This record gives sequence, C-alpha cells and structure tokens, in this order.
Amino acid sequence: MSKGLPKRSEDYSLWYNELVKRADLAENSAVRGCMVIKPYGYSIWEKMQAELDRMFKMTGHTNAYFPLFIPKSFLSKEASHVEGFAKECAVVTHYRLKGDESGKGVVVDPEAKLEEELIVRPTSETVIWSTYRNWIQSYRDLPLLVNQWANVVRWEMRTRLFLRTAEFLWQEGHTAHETREQAVEETKQMLGVYADFVEQFMALPVVRGKKTESEKFAGAEDTYCIEAMMQDGKALQAGTSHFLGQNFAKAFDVKFATRSGGLEYVWGTSWGVSTRLMGALIMAHSDDQGLVLPPRLAPIQVVIIPIFKSQEELEAISVKANEIAKGLRSKGISVKFDDRDTYKPGWKFAEYELKGVPLRIGIGPRDLQHNTLELARRDTLSKESVNLGEVDIAHKVASLLDEIQQSIYDKAMAFQNEKTTSVDRWDEFVQVLEEKGGFVSAHWDGTPETEEKIKELTKATIRCIPLEQKNESGLCIYSQKPSQGRVLFAKSY
Amino acid sequence: MSKGLPKRSEDYSLWYNELVKRADLAENSAVRGCMVIKPYGYSIWEKMQAELDRMFKMTGHTNAYFPLFIPKSFLSKEASHVEGFAKECAVVTHYRLKGDESGKGVVVDPEAKLEEELIVRPTSETVIWSTYRNWIQSYRDLPLLVNQWANVVRWEMRTRLFLRTAEFLWQEGHTAHETREQAVEETKQMLGVYADFVEQFMALPVVRGKKTESEKFAGAEDTYCIEAMMQDGKALQAGTSHFLGQNFAKAFDVKFATRSGGLEYVWGTSWGVSTRLMGALIMAHSDDQGLVLPPRLAPIQVVIIPIFKSQEELEAISVKANEIAKGLRSKGISVKFDDRDTYKPGWKFAEYELKGVPLRIGIGPRDLQHNTLELARRDTLSKESVNLGEVDIAHKVASLLDEIQQSIYDKAMAFQNEKTTSVDRWDEFVQVLEEKGGFVSAHWDGTPETEEKIKELTKATIRCIPLEQKNESGLCIYSQKPSQGRVLFAKSY
Repeated sequence: MSKGLPKRSEDYSLWYNELVKRADLAENSAVRGCMVIKPYGYSIWEKMQAELDRMFKMTGHTNAYFPLFIPKSFLSKEASHVEGFAKECAVVTHYRLKGDESGKGVVVDPEAKLEEELIVRPTSETVIWSTYRNWIQSYRDLPLLVNQWANVVRWEMRTRLFLRTAEFLWQEGHTAHETREQAVEETKQMLGVYADFVEQFMALPVVRGKKTESEKFAGAEDTYCIEAMMQDGKALQAGTSHFLGQNFAKAFDVKFATRSGGLEYVWGTSWGVSTRLMGALIMAHSDDQGLVLPPRLAPIQVVIIPIFKSQEELEAISVKANEIAKGLRSKGISVKFDDRDTYKPGWKFAEYELKGVPLRIGIGPRDLQHNTLELARRDTLSKESVNLGEVDIAHKVASLLDEIQQSIYDKAMAFQNEKTTSVDRWDEFVQVLEEKGGFVSAHWDGTPETEEKIKELTKATIRCIPLEQKNESGLCIYSQKPSQGRVLFAKSY
Repeated sequence: MSKGLPKRSEDYSLWYNELVKRADLAENSAVRGCMVIKPYGYSIWEKMQAELDRMFKMTGHTNAYFPLFIPKSFLSKEASHVEGFAKECAVVTHYRLKGDESGKGVVVDPEAKLEEELIVRPTSETVIWSTYRNWIQSYRDLPLLVNQWANVVRWEMRTRLFLRTAEFLWQEGHTAHETREQAVEETKQMLGVYADFVEQFMALPVVRGKKTESEKFAGAEDTYCIEAMMQDGKALQAGTSHFLGQNFAKAFDVKFATRSGGLEYVWGTSWGVSTRLMGALIMAHSDDQGLVLPPRLAPIQVVIIPIFKSQEELEAISVKANEIAKGLRSKGISVKFDDRDTYKPGWKFAEYELKGVPLRIGIGPRDLQHNTLELARRDTLSKESVNLGEVDIAHKVASLLDEIQQSIYDKAMAFQNEKTTSVDRWDEFVQVLEEKGGFVSAHWDGTPETEEKIKELTKATIRCIPLEQKNESGLCIYSQKPSQGRVLFAKSY
C-alpha cells in the first residue's frame, strides 16, 4: 500500500477501480475486457457460491455442466434470443494453429476451418434446451431442476471490473415444468432466493420487481429482477429470474406426455447471478479507507495484530493471541493472526482496513499487563478496550459480528430509503435524477415509446415495476397519459 | 433402464460408453467432442472437487480465476509449449454475428474481426505467468501458491466421454518459488496429494513416477505422474505435476529481488487433474451390473427401498425407514429413501445397482414383523439379513461403508499386482503386452529412439519411471544396450 485511496466523494468511479485493485480483488488482464479475479477477491466469491449453492440445493436443484460452445445455428432458433445476443458473441472459427514463416510465431491454419462456427456461450438456454429434448419424455421427468456454475462471454465494448466484463463467472438455473403456474412459481421462488441471499449475506436491501417489455431477457415472457442502490445513487441489477413460457420448448421441440395422455410443450425458467454481485458488494458498503465486508461473507472475520518491539514481546503476545484465536475458531469464526515481523502494526492496520476485515484485535505489551485488548470495528472505525477478566471474548466477538452484519444492512437500508423519491411532476423528475440520483418512483403510461423517450432525455431507465406497491392510478410523468401504478426509474450500472 | 449393459468381457469399450450414459453420468452434446455432465455424474465430480479443494487449501493454496482466452502471441513465448498445444486449439477470430440475407439465420460479421486472434485456453501457464510478472517483485511475494478450477479446450479428434473430450473441467495449480529445491518439493508434494486422493477416495492404487523426456508436459523440465490400471489392462494417467524450472519465468520475464539483494528468475510448477478422473473411477471398479462407487465419493451412500403391495404397508415401512435414515444421517451418512410408487422394487434394485450406490437396505412387511431388514452390498452383490434388535444399524452401516471402501481398494490393488509383469526378453515383452496387457516392467536404454521404436512395434508407451524401485542395472529390452533401471510400459488411454 503506497498511499490512500481516491475519495468517493471526488471521483466515485476512480475510487471503485482503485479499491478493486488495491484490495486485491481483481485486475484487468492482458485480454481486453477479461479480468483476473485475484485470490482475495475469489475467496469472497467462493463464500457467495457456497451459500447460493446451498440455497439452490435446499430448493431441490442439482448441478450439471453443459458445453462452453454453442453451434451458431442454435442461437437463431429463438428469434428474440439471437437478436439479444448476436451482437456481442465471441466466435470460434478454427481449431488449429501452425508455425508462421519466420518459424517463431504461430498463425491460424486456414485448413482447419470449422464447418459451422461455434459461439462461446453468452448464456446457455439454447444448448441446454437442445439437451432437454432428450431428457424429457413424460410428466414423470418433470420438474427438471438444474443449475450450472460456469463462465460466459459477452463481448462488451465498455468494461468495468466485476460490473461489466467480457468474460464473467455466474450460475444459470434452467428448469422445466408441466404447467405455466409451476414455472411462474419457480421463477418467483428463485427471485426470492436471490433477494434473501443479497439481503441476508451481502447486507444489501433490494427492490423486487418485474422488468418492462423492453428491458426483459431476450427470449423470456417475463423477467423478474432485484435492484440495489449504490452509494453514488445509481441502481445495480443484482439478479434476474426469467419465466420463459414455452418459447425455448417450441424452439427446440421439447414436448412431454401429460398426465391426461396428451402431448404438450414444456414450460421453462432460467435465472442467474454473476460475479457482478462482487461489484455490488464493493460499491454498496465500502468507504475511503477501503472495503467494508459484511461478516457473513468475509473470508477473514477477525484479524489479530500484535504490537511489539522485541522478539520476547512477540512471543508473549503470541501465547495470548493463539489462545484467543482458538476460542474464536471453536465458535466457527475465521481468524488470522498476523505475526509477520516484516511489516509494522500501522501498516497492517491500514492493510486490513483496506481489505475490509470486519473486526481487528490489537494486543500490545500493556494489554498483557492489564489483561486487555483493543477491539476495532471496520464498519464504524470505532474502537474499544476490552478487559478479558470481565468479558468472554469469543462470545463478545460472535455477537459483535452479528451486530456488524445488521448494522451494515441498516445503513444501506437507510441510504436506499433516503435515495428513493416519489415524484409527480416532470421538472421535479428531471431535477431529482440530475441532482439527487437514486430511485425515482413515478407514473408511466406503459408504452415503450415513452420509456425510450425518458431514457433519451434523462439517461434513466425503468429499473423495475415493483412487486409490492399500492394500487394507485395516476398520470404518466412524461406523457400525462393514464397510468395504473408507479415504476422505479434510475440511472444504472 | 430398458435392458442390461453390454458385458465388459465382450466389448469393454461399448460397456464403458453405455454405462456412462445409462448411469446418467454424461452424454455427448450437439457440439462435436464436448460432453454434457449430467446431474448424477456432476454430483460425483463435486465430491471429488470438494475433497481436492480441501487438500489444496490444507497445503496452503488459494483459488483464483484467470481469463478463458489467451492472446495468440502468448502461446509462442515458450517454444516447446506452443509446439505442444498449437495443433489442437479452438481459435476465436470474431466478436459479432449479424443477420443473414434470408433474415432468419446469422452469419459472422466480417467487420468484427479481432486484431489478434484469441485461443480458448488449453492450459493457463502463459496467461498466468504474464500476470505473475506484476504480482512478483520480491522474495516476500514468494511462494505464490495459486489454484484455479476451470474449463479448458483441446481440440481432440477422437473423443471419449470423460477420458478425452474437446472441453473438460479441471483444476490447474500454478506456483512460483524462490529456489529450484522449493519448486521441486512443491511438484512432489502435489503429486503426493493426488496419489493420496486417488488411493484414499477413489479407492484406486497408483504408481508414482516420472515421465520420460518425450512424454513430459510441453514447457516443463520434469513431469511427475500417477498411473492407474484399468480393468482391461490399459493404463490411465490420473494426474500430473510439472516442475517448470525457470522456463515460463524467462518467457514472461518474471524476476524477483532475492534475499541477498540480487535479481533472479522465479522457479515454477504446475499441476492438474481433470474430469478424466471420472473415467478412471468408472473404469476401475464397475461391473456388468453397472457402476461401483467407493463410499467416500458416492453422492448417495445408502438407499432404502420399501417392498410393499398396499398404501398401508408403505406407510408402516416408511415409519421404520425414516427412523433408520435419521440415525444414519446423524452419523454423516447420505441416505435416500425411495418411496416412489411409480416403480417396482425390482426395477429400483437394478437402478441403484446401475448407479453404484454402495449399500441398499430393503424393508418389507415381513421385516416389520420380525424387526429385520435386508442389507445388500453393491461391490460384492452379497446380501444379509440384519436383526434390528441385535444390531445397532447406524454403527453397522458406518463400519460396512468403511469396509467396502477398503475392499474396493484391495481388489483394485490385487488386480494391479496381477497385471504387473517383470519381463527381460523381447519376445516375452511382446507376448505379455499382446495377451495379458497391464504394466510391463522392463529395462530401457534411456533413448527417445528406442522408446519410439517400441511404441511403433507394440503400441505400448513408457507410462513412467517409477519413483520407488530398486537400483538395478540391466540390458534394454529392445536395444540390449545398458540400462540403469526398469520403467513401466503399457498400452494406455
């Protein structure tokens, strides 16, 4: 760590980029738009994966793996799907290199051209539904509840670490059902799983909603989403769950023998969250000192830092530190005792603040004398001295971690509330978007034309039609035509 | 399940293919050479991953993620590396599709041609070492112990489910060290981890050895491997660990400030195992009834099947079955109670034999009367009646699972011993390879010419120079020139 981070308030975008790099979360790679997820960043992603995977399995899903490549012709089978993805596809055209004339480099071997080009999957509906055709014959094969953890590629032109990268990691659930109702129920169930995960583990409140026609997934009948508010007042789509109707079943001819002896197309869903959640996690809670991690996703929950001048002092502190670490670990708390003598305590304090470790314990020679230690919270940057004779430290730390988790959530919730404005006049609409940002709750006439026009004029899009809201009719903020309810507008990532 | 599997003894290859498909492990996809790993197969792979990941972390490694794509020029930086991989590369040349003239299909957009072609990673040394250049400045940054779980692509012409596929899943460890000795030690340590995993979890004994110059990894100084014996007498390379010397450090200019104030190239290793292990697991233990899974990798360790004629009988049995299942689960045993009434017990028996579930518990109305149940082992196909008044069933099952794990290993060990022949005459060498198969331990003069000639004449390759063997000089089996020790020949997958 050479010097402090840029300030959030001065350049949010620079602050984010620098934070991601300096906290060892990710960096740009030599390949345009593709990132390297560094060990510390990946260890947070692993914690997210583990929890999501547990939630998927609890709701009856199993994992499987489908090919990275999709034959070009598959993409075209669902008309709106290909339109949505064709413009950003990495295309494999050859399967061999050969030595060049200099004898030092390699060139593509023109004789090794594929008969049909292969697309690196931007999402796997097509290759999966082409497989489901063989897996589904009868209602006995349904529901089919499958998830895949995979990498996907969308050739984005403007990329941003975690938020928008050409390659990203994600999970994609693909399910098949007997009835429309069951598929819709699954779509909503998985939206609920995502919302629970983001709120309870990422400590980030979300708005559950439905996308408009123009914002829905290419190939879906309905797209549900969760939207979160970042500290700069922009919204971030944190997860989507799609009701596919019978679109992919029809495109890939997936029919099943019904209970009543008929033959019908299967109903489908798909749903996904990605490494984009890492971006949301970072943006939502961090500050000018660095990352702020909710304890439930922190790879290291507590760091113990010895303050010492001599080897004897370090040894005496180590005895105490190891004893405390043992007690914490027995409660399932992850602890790191950083006893390196190559870095000074002050450097370590700043380093673990940058890395977002929720709790820091400092122990010096005086603490040994008085049987105390210093406990510092990352989220509030507050400190307290704890007398080990009076307090069960493991119990204290465990309840503090819970408190921090809740406190981070509450802060984000208060921020979201503050950044949500209900507006009824166009001039106010423009002004709020311009000056305050955040979610703007306003009436909309329901037409894509108005939606497009508002986007053109304000750069704000309809993030979602919230699932929970009062029935309230009114007049469209832009066209003044009748509206059946409010929608949430925002500028977004 | 329509009918029985083909017999191993009649057509081993057909038996394998059918088993993989019918046991729901994997199937070929619409994309040539790429497989779909089905949920049941994937759940076994997940168990392998979880254990390997635990072992990697225990030895100090952390996970990270590097890009799927490698710029073409990177491959050429290490001369032998590019030679090894150029011939089987999937090459991305374009980043966009557009509508075709008919308006129904899509074609590659010629205007969206990449300036430099990208290779879908066949292995990640090049992209990782290009990253390490920025991560490593001083000895303080070493050792760097990183692993990646990823998909890779090698454009194989003849593919086989799990054993050789164009895309496969694997892990690749990439480490960097201060000294040659430390890197060699890491290489050997990871070979040991692989050997332990394959022997203790897959119940499959392996020979630890070193590859010859012609068989080593493209870019390595030394390749260590573990080799396992399949039931048809062919060897299968189950894992490799490479000592890279300073080859990739030099190719990507990765130097570090030494403890003594100098500047030196870093020493490297890489090591990997893949979904190929699934092929080894299936081939090593299974029989004409289907899969035989070692309990430590079985997704379902015990299945309970009720034998009933009426709903009342099923209900009575269910009470008993759930009680037993609860007891087993409390010991960490995974249990499935299959109470479906859409399939008959006989069908279920065959189904779970096909799927390799280590233990089956059958409970019928008579068992309820006599407080008994039937316990059937998958590996030996033997059955016994157990009186629940006399035996603690959870304890019995737990120890039986241990016994089965050991028994499967012992059987494989006995088979490997029987299939290992020490040979000193050329005619015998040819005859053993032809008629008996297996490992042939023989003297070799150490030249690639002789190695190549033997391969030509017998199709056998040197699987490895075993690490543990007596010092024994002799005469080369083919050239009669002096030899310093025996090597292991075999036909292989």
